[in-house]
Amino acid sequence: MEKIVATIQKIKPLSELAMKEAQLRLDGLTKPVGSLAVLESMARQFAGVVGNPRPALPEKAIVLMAADHGVASEGVSAFPPEVTEQMVYNFVRGGAGINVLARHANARLILVDVGVKNQLSPSVPIRHCKVKHGTDNMRLGPAMSKQEAIAAIGVGIDIANELADEGIRVVALGEMGIGNTTASSAITSVLTGRPVSPVVGKGTGIAPDFVNHKIQVIAEAIACNNPNPKDALDVLAKVGGLEIAGLAGVVLGAASRGMLVMLDGFIASAAVLAAYRISVAVRPYLMASHLSEEPGHAAILEVLGVKPCLHLNMRLGEGTGAALGMTLLDAAVKIINEMATFEEAQVAPSC
Amino acid sequence: MEKIVATIQKIKPLSELAMKEAQLRLDGLTKPVGSLAVLESMARQFAGVVGNPRPALPEKAIVLMAADHGVASEGVSAFPPEVTEQMVYNFVRGGAGINVLARHANARLILVDVGVKNQLSPSVPIRHCKVKHGTDNMRLGPAMSKQEAIAAIGVGIDIANELADEGIRVVALGEMGIGNTTASSAITSVLTGRPVSPVVGKGTGIAPDFVNHKIQVIAEAIACNNPNPKDALDVLAKVGGLEIAGLAGVVLGAASRGMLVMLDGFIASAAVLAAYRISVAVRPYLMASHLSEEPGHAAILEVLGVKPCLHLNMRLGEGTGAALGMTLLDAAVKIINEMATFEEAQVAPSC
Repeated sequence: MEKIVATIQKIKPLSELAMKEAQLRLDGLTKPVGSLAVLESMARQFAGVVGNPRPALPEKAIVLMAADHGVASEGVSAFPPEVTEQMVYNFVRGGAGINVLARHANARLILVDVGVKNQLSPSVPIRHCKVKHGTDNMRLGPAMSKQEAIAAIGVGIDIANELADEGIRVVALGEMGIGNTTASSAITSVLTGRPVSPVVGKGTGIAPDFVNHKIQVIAEAIACNNPNPKDALDVLAKVGGLEIAGLAGVVLGAASRGMLVMLDGFIASAAVLAAYRISVAVRPYLMASHLSEEPGHAAILEVLGVKPCLHLNMRLGEGTGAALGMTLLDAAVKIINEMATFEEAQVAPSC
Repeated sequence: MEKIVATIQKIKPLSELAMKEAQLRLDGLTKPVGSLAVLESMARQFAGVVGNPRPALPEKAIVLMAADHGVASEGVSAFPPEVTEQMVYNFVRGGAGINVLARHANARLILVDVGVKNQLSPSVPIRHCKVKHGTDNMRLGPAMSKQEAIAAIGVGIDIANELADEGIRVVALGEMGIGNTTASSAITSVLTGRPVSPVVGKGTGIAPDFVNHKIQVIAEAIACNNPNPKDALDVLAKVGGLEIAGLAGVVLGAASRGMLVMLDGFIASAAVLAAYRISVAVRPYLMASHLSEEPGHAAILEVLGVKPCLHLNMRLGEGTGAALGMTLLDAAVKIINEMATFEEAQVAPSC
């Protein structure tokens, strides 16, 4: 817990000076004022994050945390639980969606076992940070203990610190865990105060009948555990997931080290919501990427007050939307650095 | 006119076989079926365009046509008319927004003078295809003659053919022309049958009072010229622009040579709408990129039946949104080529 408190205390506001100077430059570029809109606000925000009005093109990393969910035994997913582990091997071999899009975005992919059920061989080239062999079934009791949730958050903080030391300036959030839209819907319902039903979707693609079953399982998990909506740690422990807690730690750690956090879809955003409830100071470090098909995603983004610019109807997770979002941030950084001003280009300004 | 007719006759439907095989592959990749949604439909469409279920990463070009508008003398823009020419020099020097984003998207930028008012020196390294020294003021009479509109379309067709010969498979549409949102609103109103007011915006950033003036000018231009809504050539000539007609030609030429057309914002899309009204056969070759702040853009995209995935509130033109759209198409092509199937990765399929 000391690590979490120490991390939160290090989170500073963005540099107002860098953002003001960035805005001045953006307004002087050869285009109608404000006409690159969201690209401009991305550039300005990133200038504030790194404290430089003309920031260098950032080194980027995607932290993909994998963990299993006890609640998967309730038949809430279209895939069997062993797919979490099988997908870890697919990530290692480079064949998953996020591998393709991480290469496309020129971002490092950091694979982390924070709670896969089976013991993975130490020879598997990932970070072995298992806190627990998958969560327990939250329908019958807490998914994990508060100490385990704190440990998972600590894993995320440590990884963020390592990445900052290595020069990474943008961290995207990715996850893999069969059953994790179920946990994310529970977290979202409790932390936003919304009913369960409107924040539950088809996840990996379950049939409409099964969505009703999933809603029932989540409602029972919340009733059984009675998580305290004012205590995000309690919520993460009782109805969360190890990868979700881990990513919440990444958010806290990244903000404490002046790194921008690129959100992904529903599950990653549930982690961000938990981090935001632990400390609102993370807010200026957050950037939305895409809007997921999962209905709970929009609910979280609304609470966070961030707007996604990619409307691709995606629902894969893994950080795939965040990877695409990072390519837009790169474009924004290039705009502020490479475009000519009216003066430089000898173009007449507006009348 | 013979060139236009010959070009239209060459437009073939997409390859159903390639799209079917692409869909089969997409459904077998290690992700829930359909979970990459729009990226998957982009990949499938491009497979159909090039007739290959696993298309190579495409060579890409942005055709940026520049021209002046007589109606600019009516005070419909925040910028003086000479900015069209000044921006051509900015494009040549590489300092404009589209230069930055074309490099970002790894696309060639093809600059074309199809109707800049002043005579440009032949030493300026662009394509010199001037049809007319800017349009005439459409408030007082036709912007150009039908023969001039046909000639501008011919310029676009010729460039599309050259690009196809050079191996380009994706063409994005860009434009520069002070006054061209005014012409685009006129085209949109006439070709969609909507009133003028809801398809007029602030363009380069005029004040709300001037928007009313702009609406009045457009209404007078339409009343004075009485363009035939069933004859897109008549509309392009009477209330269009040389760069808009030129881009309509690029669309026809690209479709006739099996190249995908990446739409940009309002002005480029007005050109696409005109091309679509000349031949609906271009429709399967169109891909939307971003949704512009200009209110007429959504009206056009609705008629074309294409959905933009980038919601960046941009209103710069030049092909900037299309350049970003091309990076998403690249991502889609990489997905279909580089992701592993369930079989290859030994991951269990859905239950």
